Amino acid sequence: MQETETAGGWLTRDELRDARDRVPILYVNLVPVRVDERSQVTRIGVLLRASQEGDVGTIAHELVSGRVLYHERLRDAVLRHIERDLGPMALPQVPIAPQPFAIAEYFPTPGVTPFHDPRQHAVALAYVVVVMGDCAPQGDSLNLAWLTPAEAAALAATPDMAGGHGVLLRQALAHLGHAV
Amino acid sequence: MQETETAGGWLTRDELRDARDRVPILYVNLVPVRVDERSQVTRIGVLLRASQEGDVGTIAHELVSGRVLYHERLRDAVLRHIERDLGPMALPQVPIAPQPFAIAEYFPTPGVTPFHDPRQHAVALAYVVVVMGDCAPQGDSLNLAWLTPAEAAALAATPDMAGGHGVLLRQALAHLGHAV
Amino acid sequence: MQETETAGGWLTRDELRDARDRVPILYVNLVPVRVDERSQVTRIGVLLRASQEGDVGTIAHELVSGRVLYHERLRDAVLRHIERDLGPMALPQVPIAPQPFAIAEYFPTPGVTPFHDPRQHAVALAYVVVVMGDCAPQGDSLNLAWLTPAEAAALAATPDMAGGHGVLLRQALAHLGHAV
Amino acid sequence: MQETETAGGWLTRDELRDARDRVPILYVNLVPVRVDERSQVTRIGVLLRASQEGDVGTIAHELVSGRVLYHERLRDAVLRHIERDLGPMALPQVPIAPQPFAIAEYFPTPGVTPFHDPRQHAVALAYVVVVMGDCAPQGDSLNLAWLTPAEAAALAATPDMAGGHGVLLRQALAHLGHAV
Repeated sequence: MQETETAGGWLTRDELRDARDRVPILYVNLVPVRVDERSQVTRIGVLLRASQEGDVGTIAHELVSGRVLYHERLRDAVLRHIERDLGPMALPQVPIAPQPFAIAEYFPTPGVTPFHDPRQHAVALAYVVVVMGDCAPQGDSLNLAWLTPAEAAALAATPDMAGGHGVLLRQALAHLGHAV
Repeated sequence: MQETETAGGWLTRDELRDARDRVPILYVNLVPVRVDERSQVTRIGVLLRASQEGDVGTIAHELVSGRVLYHERLRDAVLRHIERDLGPMALPQVPIAPQPFAIAEYFPTPGVTPFHDPRQHAVALAYVVVVMGDCAPQGDSLNLAWLTPAEAAALAATPDMAGGHGVLLRQALAHLGHAV
Repeated sequence: MQETETAGGWLTRDELRDARDRVPILYVNLVPVRVDERSQVTRIGVLLRASQEGDVGTIAHELVSGRVLYHERLRDAVLRHIERDLGPMALPQVPIAPQPFAIAEYFPTPGVTPFHDPRQHAVALAYVVVVMGDCAPQGDSLNLAWLTPAEAAALAATPDMAGGHGVLLRQALAHLGHAV
Repeated sequence: MQETETAGGWLTRDELRDARDRVPILYVNLVPVRVDERSQVTRIGVLLRASQEGDVGTIAHELVSGRVLYHERLRDAVLRHIERDLGPMALPQVPIAPQPFAIAEYFPTPGVTPFHDPRQHAVALAYVVVVMGDCAPQGDSLNLAWLTPAEAAALAATPDMAGGHGVLLRQALAHLGHAV
């Protein structure tokens, strides 16, 4: 229940479980990228981490993802989750406009959408976030891979990105104008 | 607690209050429009209704707005709230893509953003929805006004649209390419 | 020089050639779709036609594409090209907002972008267009195929869609929230 | 014929005039902004310059605007026009995705759209561009004003921004989530 701990534990596991049984939970899904001097994306950051899918012990390639807290601005949630997963020196550039490049609807029931989260009904606002600084995987992240757009497209086509993160990564590449 | 009743009462007022104290609540904010044969917006639908701002008894001009229910697709929430406020014959065209034209962050604390909801921290995905059929205000809606883009821009500049709906209406007009 | 003829011949081939040697030419690239009652895309229209790539005699799968004329509104260009390729009974719904889902930069030099047009430097605004009526391929279109999103994604991954139309089709599917 | 000169004069005034009589001319309209550490827009850059409306001698507040050259990438045109008007030390961040926040259709005939350019039919892709460095007005720019969002909204409502730049500025503020 990572986000809860990130939130300083002010929301107990029971309280969050109650909310998850009642309303859709708001998330941000983030695609960290590095760009050249003309803002062309050169690398996409993908986490190798303990799966957030709930089945402890599995490893999966994932995007940066996390819950939006009560009374938290979206742009603060973006900063918090990037720093949680990429470290305090990542120097992320939060998007200047709040419109996401995609909306991912995660349902506990598989097959309703391309996105699946057995824990809950979550709706994620997806953003591409340029990071300018040094990134070091934090917390339960085992590794951070910086892939070329072509490598990212190849990874996204495999089952290694669970829960729909592969679909979302391809949506990000398409949004950025890359062949996917 | 209108949305709760719309949802068939399966979520009690207490349960919803608990959730509202714990997590941001996901909403859709909808701008109903009529278009000509070239899809140029000719009229914008604004509701005259009992305020959703919580202070019972006041009247305000509002956009169509409502909560996304647990395990409900966004496009189903758009259809449900349009039909709830405009009636079953409105024939709404749900946007084909899920990206909203704006994201409205409603805080219980005034001044954090242009959007304010004393009941809760709500995050609304905003969509323009073309309606092709006959609209009749439903439920607690007292009236439905079809304004020209110029009339809508003028109304949006007044305090008659509370809680930030005026700001959102201007964002919609700007998104549609109208002078605001 | 199809668009010239569509324009009633007021711009001669020589005049258009001159312009093509001097400035980028503005195009619209259109993805015709059919939707269900909740506006979920069920079919994507792809043209089987004599290639616009200049090498006469070849056949290619293509999107609806055409030039924006002098003093022509973008929404009029969208209507004109849909009717030119799908017929006068297609009943297209022009997007209500002018922002395209993608911008395709076609260069006469291959490899500058995923998009290539040996005739010219063209910049295309890409839109998804819902068609409600009866479509019949017109002019040099040999056939019109209505593909499921999955079939469209498969076709887009083949070399049968030349000049970058496959890339653009995948961008459209990603924009619409489909796995690509 | 500023853009021509910027382009090194390889396109003569006569050649550009010919093109302008035949096809829509592709432009970029740019809104330079400064942001805080959370990427909230704090200032918007507006040029005080000799009007581009053709009536020599008048002064107007304008956005950064310029033509896209033959065989020029859009992101290169953005960089070139920012540096032309704000100087070589502006350090602009070109948007990572090519989708503009608005499309402005400038017609030589007033009233067709909110946008007017007596010289030509121009279609402009509008982008917000974060600048991180030192800006100094160049060329025929007399001054560069950094306005707060509120000041920019007030200016945009005056006739001082000719040709529709006031409308585009309000569209930019709305896109950024500011009350306009």
